[in-house]
Parts: sequence; structure tokens; C-alpha cells
Amino acid sequence: MTRQQLFEKIREKESFLCVGLDSDLSKIPSHLHKAIDPIFEFNKQIIDATYQYAIAYKPNLAFYEALGSKGMESLERTMEYIPKDIFTIADAKRGDIGNTSNMYAKAFFENMNFDSVTVAPYMGEDSVTPYLEYPRKWVVLLAATSNKGSFDFQELMIESTGEKLYEQVIRKSASWSNANNMMYVVGATRAESLIGVRALVPDHFLLIPGVGAQGGSLEQVCKYGMNKQCGLIVNSSRGIIYAGSDENFGAAAANAAKKLQQEMAAQLQLHLG
Amino acid sequence: MTRQQLFEKIREKESFLCVGLDSDLSKIPSHLHKAIDPIFEFNKQIIDATYQYAIAYKPNLAFYEALGSKGMESLERTMEYIPKDIFTIADAKRGDIGNTSNMYAKAFFENMNFDSVTVAPYMGEDSVTPYLEYPRKWVVLLAATSNKGSFDFQELMIESTGEKLYEQVIRKSASWSNANNMMYVVGATRAESLIGVRALVPDHFLLIPGVGAQGGSLEQVCKYGMNKQCGLIVNSSRGIIYAGSDENFGAAAANAAKKLQQEMAAQLQLHLG
Repeated sequence: MTRQQLFEKIREKESFLCVGLDSDLSKIPSHLHKAIDPIFEFNKQIIDATYQYAIAYKPNLAFYEALGSKGMESLERTMEYIPKDIFTIADAKRGDIGNTSNMYAKAFFENMNFDSVTVAPYMGEDSVTPYLEYPRKWVVLLAATSNKGSFDFQELMIESTGEKLYEQVIRKSASWSNANNMMYVVGATRAESLIGVRALVPDHFLLIPGVGAQGGSLEQVCKYGMNKQCGLIVNSSRGIIYAGSDENFGAAAANAAKKLQQEMAAQLQLHLG
Repeated sequence: MTRQQLFEKIREKESFLCVGLDSDLSKIPSHLHKAIDPIFEFNKQIIDATYQYAIAYKPNLAFYEALGSKGMESLERTMEYIPKDIFTIADAKRGDIGNTSNMYAKAFFENMNFDSVTVAPYMGEDSVTPYLEYPRKWVVLLAATSNKGSFDFQELMIESTGEKLYEQVIRKSASWSNANNMMYVVGATRAESLIGVRALVPDHFLLIPGVGAQGGSLEQVCKYGMNKQCGLIVNSSRGIIYAGSDENFGAAAANAAKKLQQEMAAQLQLHLG
């Protein structure tokens, strides 16, 4: 999917919502355990319920790998089921030498047809660029994450530039490509850091976790992070997929997604008219 | 496996060799393509050929994920086949928030019974500690990797401490646990940096990639990195598993592994007597 196509979807649906498919056997409604593939059945109903409110789905690979080869089958079925006009993010946080990154790119882009993959920056340029060779596919690079441990290294000041590590990650990696195939992860819990991020990458899309349960404010994120093409994909996982816990979990997920979509529509109206 | 058990294996086999199972369908001997599970058949023969010379096996997850759920089945079969007295490393370079790291730990430690997993430090403490809750299991944390891109961020000087980022990663993470369940990745291509690493973590085991093809010297690595319990696991992947390319690939792999083992025996004799 191209940047322009993504922006058109955002305008069409008045939404920049990504639904995180962190689907966990121990948390899905118990009646689904009778299904042949409970995780796929859960995802299918979540997708049916939320599709009209969302522009992206983001399965976190860990939840599928935890179930071994059966989990990967659930993920493959899920990817086949997701409509082709929606942006998909393999939340894998991979990062390895070039030779190996090629294999991950094959796994996510060729075999499973994801539009994008999250990548960790620690190993540098040759761990990122193999993904960029696929047309219309994206790297979503970790910059400033929303977890407590993000303060351990990401906020360290770099002597040569007086920037924080995550700013240096953004500045350097932005030179490897452009806003047409790279995005950055910036946690909603650090909305004010979006000012600095936007100074470095005014045009890039940002993937924003941490709105809702983790305490980030959608209003603040939009105030500091939205650009002319929206430039934001805001993720919600548990707040949507586990909004209900019984047979009506689909309706509960739809309500939770609709609520966020309506807030997003108001923000798009406010900032882009 | 405990640290003491690992050291006993090193003395018994006079080896600290890890064989990297980066098994790629496009590179294995063509006659294996007739097998029901070519990747498993290749791994099985490599394991049979190298077991007496090695103390660890390290499958890189990318090569299995690139084949989808079938690749994960090959990996599961491989893990069942590897003898229980050898150390196993899931080279996955994972790194995610605590909730998600729990799922990866389940995938690697419970389902597939790996002894250890490689983890990327960028997301900090809560992305690492969930793995440390498993008794006799290990985190192998990326510190200074052997690839070109490692210079992009790992070598940046940190203002507050005057240390490089990878040194700060080692110093801080060493406080999260101890040498009984943490190791560090330090590339052989930076043998002299082992002096600084050993000043920070004298007792920890280090996983060393980059000997051979990538240009690292075993002698230099041992000079600067070996401690009283050896403290080194040196990996070779392509140099062993692709030493041959026809029906006799097992014998070729055995020869390549034996050659490294003999050099390692000499280094153990030299430094530990």
C-alpha cells in the first residue's frame, strides 16, 4: 500500500485506528475453545466487528509463536481473511544481520503478504534496508516505545550530537530511505516528545501505541503529531479485542472501536478540516 | 542447563563451538529436496556429523519463519532431535514489552525447550526480565554485534557516562541478574573490545559470532575474552553447515567442525591448562 492510498483510507473511514490482534488463548471467550482454530475464529469475529472503524490490523507475532506451528497457521489464516484494502503490520520487532533480515522480509512480505513489519534499530542500517527493497512495503522502526524500560537506553544523551538515542535513531535512519516506506513507533505516553520527532520527520507516518490503558491522550497525540496527511496510526489492542468476554465480544469490540473512531473523526476535522 | 554444566561440557569435549543452524532451502544439497522435510533432514545430518565437536546449536529463527508454519514444524522436529546434553540457543533477537516477552519466553522455553534466547536491548529492562524467570534458562543479550550496521548506534558515546552505548547496555543489564542466566553477544570482529567487556562482566559467558568468514580471529578472541570457566561460546554457521554441497555434506561439516574444535582445544590448554 502506498502513502497516498493509506491517507485516502483514513479520509474515507475518518479513522486512523489500528486494531492490535494480540490474541491470547487464555483471554479469548471460552465458548471459542470448541472451534477447530480458536485463535482464527476469534480474529475473524474481531475483524468482522471492527473493519468499518479501522484502517489497519497489527498482529503481534509473539502471541502466535507461543502456540508453535499451529499458531503460525492461525496467523496465516488471519492474514488471508483480512480484506486487502486494509494496512497490515507484522508486529515482530525483528532486527538481524542483512542475510537474515532477507529471510524475515520473505516471511512477512512474500509468504504472509503483510504491508509492513516493525523492526528494532539496535543492529543498524544493514538490519533495516533489506525490508526496504520490497515495493509498496514498509518498515516501522522502533524509536521511542511506550513501556517503562524505554527509559533505560532510548533516552540516553548522545555526546556527539546532544540528542537522545531515539532522536539519533530517527535522524540517521531517515537518511536510509524516505516517508514512502518508513514509519516510526512513538509511544502515546510521550506525546510532547512528538514535537521533537516532527522536527526530524515532518512527513513520516508514526505508529502510536499506548493510547487508553497505558494512559496516552489521543488529543495530545494529535496536537503534537498530526501532519497534513494525518501521519498517525494509533493502535489499540486489549482495549478493543477484550472489551467483551462472552458470546457478545464482537459487539463489545465494535463499540470500543467505534468510540475511538469517532474521537479520531473529530480530531481529523479539527486539524485537517 | 547451569553455568557449571556448560563448563563441564566444554572441558569434556575440549570445545566451545556452537553450530549455527541457518538452514536455507536454497543452499542445502539438492538431493535433500526429495525428503518429506528437507530442512529437518539437513539439520539431522549436520547434528549427527558435528555433535561430538560442538557444545551448542543455534538455529536462527528467520530461516524457519521464512517457510511459514512448515518451517516451524522443521524447527520443532530439530529441537526434538538435538541431544538433551547440548546447549541450545534460539537466535531470535526478540525484544518487546513485558506482556509480549512472556509469550516469546513461552514459545522458546516451554514449547520448544530451548536453553536460551537472544534478546535485543533497545526496549530496556521489562523486555528482558520475563525470560529470566525461568530456572536454568538464559538470556543472550545483544551488546556489540559483528555486522557493519553495529557502528550506527552501538558505538555512540553516552554523555553521562563517557561509555559507548553497548558498554552502557552491558553495565545496566548486568544489574538485572547475574552470570548464571545472562550472556552477551560480542562480535569476534571486535576482539579488542573484549578487554572493556571483560572489565564490566568478568564472569559472564559471551556468545561470539564472526570467527572465520567474517574475519574474526579465534586466537585474539581467546586472548582478550576467555575467563576461568572459558566464558566463551564461539559460533560458526555457514563455514560448517555449507562446507560441502553434495551427498557428502555431513563429512565436510564434520571436518570443518573438527578443525575448529582442535583450535579450541589448543586455546583451552593454553589459557586454562
